[in-house]
Amino acid sequence: MNETHREDNIRLLGELLEDFPVAMLTTILTRDGSLHSRPMMTQNAVFDGNLWFFSKFDSAKVDEIRAGSQVNLAYTASAEGRFISVAGSANIIHERLQMEALWNDSYQTWFPAGLDEPGLALLRIEVNAAEVWDSASGANGLVLRFV
Amino acid sequence: MNETHREDNIRLLGELLEDFPVAMLTTILTRDGSLHSRPMMTQNAVFDGNLWFFSKFDSAKVDEIRAGSQVNLAYTASAEGRFISVAGSANIIHERLQMEALWNDSYQTWFPAGLDEPGLALLRIEVNAAEVWDSASGANGLVLRFV
Repeated sequence: MNETHREDNIRLLGELLEDFPVAMLTTILTRDGSLHSRPMMTQNAVFDGNLWFFSKFDSAKVDEIRAGSQVNLAYTASAEGRFISVAGSANIIHERLQMEALWNDSYQTWFPAGLDEPGLALLRIEVNAAEVWDSASGANGLVLRFV
Repeated sequence: MNETHREDNIRLLGELLEDFPVAMLTTILTRDGSLHSRPMMTQNAVFDGNLWFFSKFDSAKVDEIRAGSQVNLAYTASAEGRFISVAGSANIIHERLQMEALWNDSYQTWFPAGLDEPGLALLRIEVNAAEVWDSASGANGLVLRFV
């Protein structure tokens, strides 16, 4: 796609996501094909086409997120009438430097041992497309593409 | 599973879902396997193991929801620290009597022609399992099974 167009969509989606403290991450359970979601704290990193989340990867979650797995992130602000769907592919990243760069002490509530929390890793979602519903702007399923 | 256990879980999930005006419904796009979500107004019907949503079924959505498709419903109340994931299988129902029973005039905002809205149908989600996060009760991924 046109690179300027991609840059515009990255800036717009980054602005839209700023106000959401939590996303619901949906993955496909490999075992039976069922779909499961769970809340993920959003990060403050500037959006560049990838979204990052800290998570503890027990065996169940690793079963659902293999390299390049298709996932969805759902952002909900019911009172404001704003909803965003992000479709992307997920990878688990174990790079300590990247984790240090994204770490914020407020995450200690969930990961008491900080960056030394057993099993702690980053989930990187490469965003392929997003859809936006926003009663303020009138967006009703507005599609933003990134690839 | 034990029928009493199922009845208990139905009552508990029904109570938990009462306060959420909107769910994000995630489906798998048949064409490329990507995951997409969109906001769905929740219904007031008493929960009996199935969740019902009114929707207009254009060709794109029908492509994602074939009979028995696996879907996820994500319920988000960030301020209250309450999140629910519902895994189920979806069917599109065109029964006029069922639509009349579930109709509420407030839905006219989205479907101006009411029950005569072109393409209007019901989405029935047969719930297989739910997971609950709730900071008030301390539930942290509490699993409720229905089959």
